[in-house]
Amino acid sequence: MAVPLTRIGLAGLAVMGQNLALNIAEKGFPISVYNRTTSKVDETVERAKREGNLPLYGFHDPESFVRSIQRPRVIIMLVKAGAPVDQTIKTLSVYMEKGDCIIDGGNEWYENTERREKAMAELGLLYLGMGVSGGEEGARNGPSLMPGGSFQAYKYIEDILLKVAAQVPDSGPCVTYVGKGGSGNFVKMVHNGIEYGDMQLIAEAYDVLKSVGKLSNEELCHVFSEWNKGELLSFLIEITADIFGIRDDKGDGYLVDKVLDKTGMKGTGKWTVQQAAELSVAAPTIASSLDARSLSGLKKERVEAAKVFKSSGVCGILTEHTIDKRKLIDDVRQALYASKICSYAQGMNLIRAKSIEKGWNLKLGELARIWKGGCIIRAVFLDRIKKAYDRNPDLANLLVDPEFAKEIIERQSAWRRVVCLAINSGVSTPGMSSSLAYYDTYRRERVPANLVQAQRDYFGAHTYERIDVKGSFHTEWFKIAKRSKMDLKF
Amino acid sequence: MAVPLTRIGLAGLAVMGQNLALNIAEKGFPISVYNRTTSKVDETVERAKREGNLPLYGFHDPESFVRSIQRPRVIIMLVKAGAPVDQTIKTLSVYMEKGDCIIDGGNEWYENTERREKAMAELGLLYLGMGVSGGEEGARNGPSLMPGGSFQAYKYIEDILLKVAAQVPDSGPCVTYVGKGGSGNFVKMVHNGIEYGDMQLIAEAYDVLKSVGKLSNEELCHVFSEWNKGELLSFLIEITADIFGIRDDKGDGYLVDKVLDKTGMKGTGKWTVQQAAELSVAAPTIASSLDARSLSGLKKERVEAAKVFKSSGVCGILTEHTIDKRKLIDDVRQALYASKICSYAQGMNLIRAKSIEKGWNLKLGELARIWKGGCIIRAVFLDRIKKAYDRNPDLANLLVDPEFAKEIIERQSAWRRVVCLAINSGVSTPGMSSSLAYYDTYRRERVPANLVQAQRDYFGAHTYERIDVKGSFHTEWFKIAKRSKMDLKF
Repeated sequence: MAVPLTRIGLAGLAVMGQNLALNIAEKGFPISVYNRTTSKVDETVERAKREGNLPLYGFHDPESFVRSIQRPRVIIMLVKAGAPVDQTIKTLSVYMEKGDCIIDGGNEWYENTERREKAMAELGLLYLGMGVSGGEEGARNGPSLMPGGSFQAYKYIEDILLKVAAQVPDSGPCVTYVGKGGSGNFVKMVHNGIEYGDMQLIAEAYDVLKSVGKLSNEELCHVFSEWNKGELLSFLIEITADIFGIRDDKGDGYLVDKVLDKTGMKGTGKWTVQQAAELSVAAPTIASSLDARSLSGLKKERVEAAKVFKSSGVCGILTEHTIDKRKLIDDVRQALYASKICSYAQGMNLIRAKSIEKGWNLKLGELARIWKGGCIIRAVFLDRIKKAYDRNPDLANLLVDPEFAKEIIERQSAWRRVVCLAINSGVSTPGMSSSLAYYDTYRRERVPANLVQAQRDYFGAHTYERIDVKGSFHTEWFKIAKRSKMDLKF
Repeated sequence: MAVPLTRIGLAGLAVMGQNLALNIAEKGFPISVYNRTTSKVDETVERAKREGNLPLYGFHDPESFVRSIQRPRVIIMLVKAGAPVDQTIKTLSVYMEKGDCIIDGGNEWYENTERREKAMAELGLLYLGMGVSGGEEGARNGPSLMPGGSFQAYKYIEDILLKVAAQVPDSGPCVTYVGKGGSGNFVKMVHNGIEYGDMQLIAEAYDVLKSVGKLSNEELCHVFSEWNKGELLSFLIEITADIFGIRDDKGDGYLVDKVLDKTGMKGTGKWTVQQAAELSVAAPTIASSLDARSLSGLKKERVEAAKVFKSSGVCGILTEHTIDKRKLIDDVRQALYASKICSYAQGMNLIRAKSIEKGWNLKLGELARIWKGGCIIRAVFLDRIKKAYDRNPDLANLLVDPEFAKEIIERQSAWRRVVCLAINSGVSTPGMSSSLAYYDTYRRERVPANLVQAQRDYFGAHTYERIDVKGSFHTEWFKIAKRSKMDLKF
């Protein structure tokens, strides 16, 4: 090899890997790349030439790949989570030396990262699990990066990450050292859960506007474009506007109407919901988005069910002329925004709960900051979240931040109108209605859990607390009830 | 020992264990009992004498306990799930012989049962994981039993279980061989998840009637008593009526009002929600009941949040005189019943999904039958479920069973009224509203998942299907949108 040692390596050259490698090279860091299927290596080298003679060097075997990198070596993997990660580590680590580092840039389950970090430490190697968000485009031009694990390893490549990450005016590069262990993966997982929530809420806004408000795609395109100028300004609102404007290239009309209503999913949303349950953090907005995806998959069953309930007479109760479109659009915007606050409150509280459990000491405001650019959920809204945690790092819930509380209070009438309108039109808004239920539960001093606890004490002697006296109490409910029923008879 | 060999043994003499042992003895099966803390053994022996000289024999050491049972020996454990079960198995199995059997009667995670069944098989021992529902009272007088694992072991004690289980006229003893592996524990877990759902729905009915309808405890007691004469007839409705009738023995008023609104939980509800996510089965009613318990635990936060939103002006919009109590009560009854159908549909589909994954071949109608008596969710309603699966064992969802569909159609207007009334009163009904959203999603031929899938294809090239042409498609949404925006400028 005539080339000097490179600064960093990247293994796994599917589109995300290729793009991230090219991004790193473009920022002036010579990079070695490797892939088991060697044609991908050549393809990447070709692209590096084509996209500006970038300092990217391809290798067809793992040994020369590893040896081409300056020490301490840092290699980013972008391979499928699970077994392929273990396989890649095995392949590469035999050539690596004490103090070298491997970074997993995939959507990995955080416990796998913690397991690997330990195993690597036994070999004297460092390890990072780094969430990478932004899809293909983000990887190439600036993703949001969530590295967690060895701080020493993070310091090796901090200069690279700061340049490679998305740059946001006033708040800097979208990367920070997240924390120890699997915290980077965990935060990326919740990010994806929040992404599920955002997408579901937008889909519901679309559904209400289209099914109840009878808006055309042109109108929807216009509405979302307008929304993208205000408080909802975000990547997902922007692309939604784009989508409504695209005509079908295979026939008449708009492409969105030809897309089958079945949503795929890949695991991080599911993990988020499972972790929320594990940590006793209510995350109903995110959970309802997962449910909506599951139910969307039951297309055949839904078609059959629609026949069964066809004559039930709910849909169409509210016909077009009873709807004030302008008002509806404004109401839906407010309902979407208020629901979004609830969704982020849930995600943030989930991260905090895990951080406490694991002793990660995560900074919620800093996470909101690194999501402001590069990633799928990037939005002007995240700045408000950052500011809320700047005001009060110990904020119990985003809902009670004075600014957010004010925004919700202003929007709650519209929010309630939209959900009730949807219910009365037979259109489901599981994300908006579960967000509203979350808000209405959280802000209630007294919920009916007293009855549930009384029931539990009745049949299972689980005991209860009282509102007026400290302590744990048990009542022989059955015996007392039986006695008083006997009394009634005499 | 002068006593002849007993028929069966039971280890773990907390209240549930004591009561089940006494139940078995009372049915005429001589039983040996053992507990690590020996005072519990003596206590149980005392009770056996007192409760009718039952054939129950106590042992203070594991060896004589095991040897006192006729071969093949069957020992039921009722100890805390997890490590205590492993410890008990370890203690007992050293004295057991080939063909003997251990039964875990606790709320164990099904995978633990499968792990233990394998480990036991290596010792030549059989193993069952048996869900036991009905609380203390059920254990003593007739529980619902859900044994799964070794069929051979089940056959050893089928005669005992048939007598010990709750007896329901017309449908027999509440026990059946559930299936292989951990299926008994899994089914018990979902049973508990459904129990969470039932309790939450009842709590919401209470909340709406009390907070919106301003019903007194006397009125609530009357309403639930009346409901218990009709379609809602069930153990949980019955005890709810009882609870409203019990006065506080520490002060004025009713006890239920003095119980703190914080609900405990022990794990099976959480597992149910996590398994639903794992298996892509939407179970929002059960999930919302878990969330409600989590949020109930945040009492301090709720008190603070209530202050923040105090002036938000939602509660109390609808004052007493605008409410027709009679109509509200009738509406709430219907909403509760319709939501309950959704909750059971979710639980049943969760069981089926697992059954398919594991090849358990579970019989859903048979499970509904064994829940008709003994257990916490026992209800006349379960007979309708059994009949629905009798009519069609391959029923995709309880909602589309002709009888249930008819019932829902009749009740949906009331259901929508109750949820909207709650929303407009600032009272959360997460269980009822998520049930309604579940129904409204499931019965819709076209949901807005097309937009979500278009978004996924836009930012992640996840591809989509079309409604008109078979295949998998990808569109360069961004490029097309950019081009048309350029066109607009010129």
